[in-house]
Amino acid sequence: MTGAVPQAADLERWQAADRQARPARVGALRERLARQSLDGYFGVRRENTRYLTGFELEDGEEKVAGNSGQFFVSADEVVVLADSRYTVQAAEQCPDARLEGVYQDFAGRWPDLLASLRPISSGNGLVRLAVEAGFVSHATWQRLAEASPAVELVPVEGWVEEQRQIKEPAEIERIAAACAVADQALRSLLPRIRPGATEAELALELEWLMRTGGAEALAFGVACLAGPRAALPHGSPGPREVVAGEVLLFDFGAQVGGYRSDMTRTLFVGQPSARDLEIYRLVADAQAAPLTALEKAASEGRSLLNRAVDAAARDVISTAGHGAHFGHGLGHGIGLATHELPSLGRLAPPAELPTPTVFSVEPGVYLDGQTGVRIEDLVLFDAARRRLERLTGFPREVTVVGE
Amino acid sequence: MTGAVPQAADLERWQAADRQARPARVGALRERLARQSLDGYFGVRRENTRYLTGFELEDGEEKVAGNSGQFFVSADEVVVLADSRYTVQAAEQCPDARLEGVYQDFAGRWPDLLASLRPISSGNGLVRLAVEAGFVSHATWQRLAEASPAVELVPVEGWVEEQRQIKEPAEIERIAAACAVADQALRSLLPRIRPGATEAELALELEWLMRTGGAEALAFGVACLAGPRAALPHGSPGPREVVAGEVLLFDFGAQVGGYRSDMTRTLFVGQPSARDLEIYRLVADAQAAPLTALEKAASEGRSLLNRAVDAAARDVISTAGHGAHFGHGLGHGIGLATHELPSLGRLAPPAELPTPTVFSVEPGVYLDGQTGVRIEDLVLFDAARRRLERLTGFPREVTVVGE
Repeated sequence: MTGAVPQAADLERWQAADRQARPARVGALRERLARQSLDGYFGVRRENTRYLTGFELEDGEEKVAGNSGQFFVSADEVVVLADSRYTVQAAEQCPDARLEGVYQDFAGRWPDLLASLRPISSGNGLVRLAVEAGFVSHATWQRLAEASPAVELVPVEGWVEEQRQIKEPAEIERIAAACAVADQALRSLLPRIRPGATEAELALELEWLMRTGGAEALAFGVACLAGPRAALPHGSPGPREVVAGEVLLFDFGAQVGGYRSDMTRTLFVGQPSARDLEIYRLVADAQAAPLTALEKAASEGRSLLNRAVDAAARDVISTAGHGAHFGHGLGHGIGLATHELPSLGRLAPPAELPTPTVFSVEPGVYLDGQTGVRIEDLVLFDAARRRLERLTGFPREVTVVGE
Repeated sequence: MTGAVPQAADLERWQAADRQARPARVGALRERLARQSLDGYFGVRRENTRYLTGFELEDGEEKVAGNSGQFFVSADEVVVLADSRYTVQAAEQCPDARLEGVYQDFAGRWPDLLASLRPISSGNGLVRLAVEAGFVSHATWQRLAEASPAVELVPVEGWVEEQRQIKEPAEIERIAAACAVADQALRSLLPRIRPGATEAELALELEWLMRTGGAEALAFGVACLAGPRAALPHGSPGPREVVAGEVLLFDFGAQVGGYRSDMTRTLFVGQPSARDLEIYRLVADAQAAPLTALEKAASEGRSLLNRAVDAAARDVISTAGHGAHFGHGLGHGIGLATHELPSLGRLAPPAELPTPTVFSVEPGVYLDGQTGVRIEDLVLFDAARRRLERLTGFPREVTVVGE
């Protein structure tokens, strides 16, 4: 699937699709709550808010939004909290939710808020409330527990995240559109890459191309690393200049309609050295192996163990003697968050890949102080429809720039 | 004080100043811990990490950095956690700290980490550890409490934040430099503002001017709101076009050396209407009143109650009959975070302003569906040196653009 750069009509269509999908998403959560004899759900993670209620917060905005965007799921309602700054937005984005104004004293409002919820499991008033324990601070948890001592707060983690890993068609379309924006941005950047340009300049240019080319935001800060710095597993672009004869690694992604892309390309500035070319081919082979395995599984309508996918790539690199130079996992799911389930790391809890799902396949080989190569693509894995599709469109072949 | 756009030498000088200041910052925290019979401190908030250890995380990076950047303060050490992605960076930025590698199983490492700390108050091993309860999730708190049941985790909130509100000279210099970058960016944008340009386009241009003009990042997403949308207390720039005869509000800030600026200017596109001009003059008067009060207090070497400063502005607006149209507080401290102590809201806990400190003074009048005006400047309030200085340099006079 190759996505197109998004238009205003696309964004409206996706919003409508989300609204239509939300009752089923909320319904699945209610079923799980009922199975565990829980009466309701209190969520605070911004991606979960958007998924279940439609209320949008930018990345990081949750740190300054107070309680705005936090929500309850009860037997018959979704309730979204918003302070006065967010009232207009909440009314627009959450037409099917009940809105509650919450200002300074959240713990003071807590008992009344809970009393207004129809319990899922208990006959008579709310008794056990599931709470996103990985995202509510300890201080807040204590205040809420003290505010309503009769209601048991039950810590849950990863429930909505497990639902989110299975992607609906309109979610996949948005990831593909974000990929298209990023593809186009890198294509436009290529002729501007010259020896002497700095990592920071190129990173900013690539960001600019995405943000004027259809991205509402970045998926994460652009990584642009030249030469030996490409071996840094986590480097920020700096004042280092691009040098002919070295690699130039870009790891970047766009956000469209809330959904994200993620792609890495390692380019060659001028003619590649034999060493760099050898490593590039190795990494390309290491990427091809799991893609072949995934394609075969998909064509047979079955899933694969996450660790088996990682192993398919890792075996290629280890056989070539570079096992110690591939220190991270093979990939990660992507959607509203840049990193989400499923995890394809070698240390990830073993599990069959869900389907349909979207994740990255990104092997790398890093020679400390010398050079580094990573190739990262996003794929849609859909066993039911027997298909594996690459969503990132930029060529994976050796690309020489700056000549 | 008018800051200059920062140079590489400035950044090095500020880093050296931070390194020199850290022992006193950590010492002040140790004294407070000792007064409360606590043995150590476990911190996770990214601004506190940078303030006490030097380790830098971008805004939001803490969400994907695992435990990297989290830290302990013990009787004789600062200990910084970093996983393999951050080892090189931690060694560079925290030359005076002990570094500890932490990977997947943080709770598993917890007992050994605690055992390695020399307690501040207890004679024999760590007994009571202060933990940043507003920033550690409930789930993590439970895991750590269970991992070392003999160590009491004592929730603390706002301790380092209280220290951070009093600014050192090198911190003030950076805020002033961030102000200078933002001033210059708006000056450069003025000739480009024309009826027909959209809010989103102008916001992106202003961002670009800051980020190519000395800002390492934005302090927050640029707000650009045209006409009646200027009345939205929390609007994002959208497709609305700038129209002659309306206001155009920019609220924006830069980040330099980790420190931030924040400024709002409400411009007039073409000749202002009588109504808009009247409101503008009212808001300007409402800003002048607290500035005069602050100046007087500073000149007499005394502080002021935070609420009194808010009241000085609010009285002017209320007297003019617009009390209901000024819904937010007068201002907030700024530094490593865009919003920090002191708070100058009318609902803030009453307290004397600390000194020296930096905060915003930003009255506004918002007529729903019609127009809005806010004028925001940053000031340095230093009673000991008997001075009040404006750090934002852009003129506050009526500014007409797009003619």
